[in-house]
Amino acid sequence: MLGDLVAGVTVGLTLIPQAIAYASLAGLEPQYGLYSAFVGSFIYVIFGTCREISIGPTALLSLLTWTYARGIPGYTALLCFLSGCVTIFLGILHLGFLVEFVSIPVISGFTSAASLIIACSQIKNLLGLNIHGENFVEIWRQLINHITDTKIPDLILSCCCIVILLILKHLKDKNVANTTLKRFLWVIGTARNALVVILCAVTSYIFEMHDGAPFILTGHIHAGLPSIDPPPFSRTIGQNQTESFIDMAKNFNFGILVIPLLSIIGNVAIAKAFSRGMPLDATQEMLTLGLCNIIGSFFHSIPVTGSFSRSAVLNASGIKTPLGSIYTGILVILALSLLTPYFYYIPKATLSSVIITAVIFMIEIGTILPIWKCNKRDLIPAFVTFFASLFVGVELGILIGMIIDLAILTYLNARPTINIEYKNISTMNYIMIRPVAGILFPAVEHLRSYLTKALSNKCHKSLKNLDTLTSVVLDCEHIDKIDFTVVQSISMLAKDFRNNNCQLIMLRPNPDILKSIQSLSHKQILIARNEIDLITILKELKNVIPNVNEIEALNSKIIPETTNEFVSTWL
Amino acid sequence: MLGDLVAGVTVGLTLIPQAIAYASLAGLEPQYGLYSAFVGSFIYVIFGTCREISIGPTALLSLLTWTYARGIPGYTALLCFLSGCVTIFLGILHLGFLVEFVSIPVISGFTSAASLIIACSQIKNLLGLNIHGENFVEIWRQLINHITDTKIPDLILSCCCIVILLILKHLKDKNVANTTLKRFLWVIGTARNALVVILCAVTSYIFEMHDGAPFILTGHIHAGLPSIDPPPFSRTIGQNQTESFIDMAKNFNFGILVIPLLSIIGNVAIAKAFSRGMPLDATQEMLTLGLCNIIGSFFHSIPVTGSFSRSAVLNASGIKTPLGSIYTGILVILALSLLTPYFYYIPKATLSSVIITAVIFMIEIGTILPIWKCNKRDLIPAFVTFFASLFVGVELGILIGMIIDLAILTYLNARPTINIEYKNISTMNYIMIRPVAGILFPAVEHLRSYLTKALSNKCHKSLKNLDTLTSVVLDCEHIDKIDFTVVQSISMLAKDFRNNNCQLIMLRPNPDILKSIQSLSHKQILIARNEIDLITILKELKNVIPNVNEIEALNSKIIPETTNEFVSTWL
Repeated sequence: MLGDLVAGVTVGLTLIPQAIAYASLAGLEPQYGLYSAFVGSFIYVIFGTCREISIGPTALLSLLTWTYARGIPGYTALLCFLSGCVTIFLGILHLGFLVEFVSIPVISGFTSAASLIIACSQIKNLLGLNIHGENFVEIWRQLINHITDTKIPDLILSCCCIVILLILKHLKDKNVANTTLKRFLWVIGTARNALVVILCAVTSYIFEMHDGAPFILTGHIHAGLPSIDPPPFSRTIGQNQTESFIDMAKNFNFGILVIPLLSIIGNVAIAKAFSRGMPLDATQEMLTLGLCNIIGSFFHSIPVTGSFSRSAVLNASGIKTPLGSIYTGILVILALSLLTPYFYYIPKATLSSVIITAVIFMIEIGTILPIWKCNKRDLIPAFVTFFASLFVGVELGILIGMIIDLAILTYLNARPTINIEYKNISTMNYIMIRPVAGILFPAVEHLRSYLTKALSNKCHKSLKNLDTLTSVVLDCEHIDKIDFTVVQSISMLAKDFRNNNCQLIMLRPNPDILKSIQSLSHKQILIARNEIDLITILKELKNVIPNVNEIEALNSKIIPETTNEFVSTWL
Repeated sequence: MLGDLVAGVTVGLTLIPQAIAYASLAGLEPQYGLYSAFVGSFIYVIFGTCREISIGPTALLSLLTWTYARGIPGYTALLCFLSGCVTIFLGILHLGFLVEFVSIPVISGFTSAASLIIACSQIKNLLGLNIHGENFVEIWRQLINHITDTKIPDLILSCCCIVILLILKHLKDKNVANTTLKRFLWVIGTARNALVVILCAVTSYIFEMHDGAPFILTGHIHAGLPSIDPPPFSRTIGQNQTESFIDMAKNFNFGILVIPLLSIIGNVAIAKAFSRGMPLDATQEMLTLGLCNIIGSFFHSIPVTGSFSRSAVLNASGIKTPLGSIYTGILVILALSLLTPYFYYIPKATLSSVIITAVIFMIEIGTILPIWKCNKRDLIPAFVTFFASLFVGVELGILIGMIIDLAILTYLNARPTINIEYKNISTMNYIMIRPVAGILFPAVEHLRSYLTKALSNKCHKSLKNLDTLTSVVLDCEHIDKIDFTVVQSISMLAKDFRNNNCQLIMLRPNPDILKSIQSLSHKQILIARNEIDLITILKELKNVIPNVNEIEALNSKIIPETTNEFVSTWL
């Protein structure tokens, strides 16, 4: 229990400054970050399946929230509510498998681009500039135009904060002989965000007492716990106009799909990382996550999900039971009740430094080399996703990445490796065609071209001096599944073959494939269950094309009449 | 040569009435159908690869032309020109493989729906109604509303035409003992459209000579050969407004992609059907088809492609060389020069009867049973394509069908069959996991769940009384390709396994897979080239988890250092 208390409080010290910072990322006042930070902790303790997960605001979801809700509190709460509903809906329909279609290279490219955008969006605060950029290109254009307005005090403060934060982060995992020192370094390293924020707030306070702080401060914020209201289902604009629920939902556009999907991806990825080989109940995780967002929306929360960095802290702090998160939640409530007056003094540059030092390590430059070494082709979706996210927008970026991934997948399905061998048994020549992977409809032309090539080669090339070739063997050993398009094409080819004095033999089809082939063309194709069958058949053929009745007789000799019996006698 | 002449003229007698009818389907005057019918014949003789193909207007392309060009001659010619350019462009880039991603069930569903729409759109002419419906539902609504306006003479004429056409079609392939009679029946059966059109025109002429024909006639049409003009690249609307090329191209919308793709699919399918096992030069076919359309557009043609029904006639007429088509072209030119005044008398009901008896046999009800028997799953894309084409529109229908096909393909990739066996060698227990197909990123969760299940079962279930299980073997025999996501997941799992006193062994990876696995986690996973290696490894392990150095030593004993050497010593 003491271990859980320490872990919970440690994560709280990371969470509070992050929550304040991420609120500004979502375009909201700091208290909204804290409103988002405690509900999830309590809900997850009850329904969650993985004790290490720390639910709360994250940099990525905050950025997306800003994209869709434009920093309007009512909109944000509604977005949170709808995201929760969609998450639960996907969970109930067991649609969590959809996230399996996002590959690691796409996630890497996407996370890196989002982190880079977040980091760049914070540079203005580091420099004390009051500018506004909607996207990556715009951010940089504005920065370059206003670079001369840089406020020196803010810049100095930012540099100090970033240097301290990086040093403390570095010291955290330093290998020191002295255990006490190591533990001390780990604690201040983990609580570094809180330390730096307190230090800077105190500094500002001292400045204010004299002739005013030289840096831009957070300013007045609403004190105390949030009121409990349902999210607004309509909104008054200007004087008399009201915006209906449908209008608001329409304004969210793809947001009500993108935010739930990304929060599921994030949460499931963390749960997997800490699952220690245990099977993961993805549906339960999705229902819990949805509930955290729905209930959170009554407390004016921004959309929340599991945070990888905080989960890692929980794990490293030696959490033993899921109860640890309760202490985090209590700490956040205490901060809201007692500390809000002091948030006034936190410099914006400090909060931006906290964000930047958190996200720059999420730019996964280090993943490029392993992908290159492992499978160069996978760099295509990674880079396309990265640049598309950066220059077209994060949500379109991940979509484009997924489309490229699926295109590559389809291409691989369309071009399976096919081996071709010219063989003979005593006087019988035959060509063996062996696809190394399954054949489904996109691959049918590829297979067809191999079979046709075999046919057109039958009188020349390596078998030139033997004009006795009458058999082409299609080895189905590696073919697991088949579809109508493939069966139809093979049947048509078998007919063509027979018109050209050539017999198609299928070797080792599995029962499903055999059934499909028999249903369409049982009088065109010979079947061999194994190599021994094949030799028997080739000897019976004696280089003469059998007629339809002979094929039927040969097949029924090899394959018993009833399919059930056949399956049981199969190898 | 005589054979070619007979074949060419026979096809001409089918083509001329079809061309006139299809022109009205495209919303144009009859002469435009004939303008479209001769250019392709001459071009294809020079550049085509398959002597049986008869290029010209088809029912499907005429319907689509009406959809996109709305019966405006200038628009139609421009659409024809642009379709030709796109076809050539796709041919030059060797993008013909794109048509491989349209499966037979989707084509069946699409063709059936388009044929049904065409047939229904002709019912108004059968009944002598003057109504106009934009889509399938609208056509029927209009028909039901105006059914009481039915003109009895048109109805009687239609019934007669359809009955005669169906009887003649039936007689054509009738097996009659007398060879001369059989040949006679075949000839009048094949020329049935021309016969019926002439008969009806003569009847109308006689009626007109007395007190006017009681049926709706085709009316005056422009006589003579077409002028040779480039397609219009801008257009004057009303008084002073001009529509630029860009505006016109924009109005075509997806048409400039749908029409080329469907004409390629149609043409390639026919070439395949008649290729007799010879390899097909799809690129050459595409270039030829594009050229036919581009040159055709100078003669005010509607988009053309190979017609399956006329190609079958060419084949059945015993064509010997590609020259047969020249006679067809000459016949069409003669008709244009000499017969146009007589087209006035062709009743509209007769032309609609020609269309309907041509398309109703393209509604592939007969394909449902084979698909059901062969692979029930393939009925989903077939039916979805059919109903979507009918109720949402043909071009969206084929798109939806392709998306469903790709979704099924991705699903099959995501859920490969995986076999799991509990085995032991002397005192060593191990679990063998054998995927039956390749593992790419969508399948990684599926594989993971099997491996995790194996791990969580290791202390109970069928191995309950043996707590000595320390190895899980992943048999890669059927795994052909792999990607970063899979390798990363396997590596993470191997680490998890080792933390839970379990060692992952990969059996029979191919060189590519081995290289990928080694690049990420050469110190976590043991490699066995074959079953003998596996036994050696299991004996060395003696139920104890090896440390990282031992893994390295074991692996380097089995796999020689240089990959080249390794590949050559591989089985």
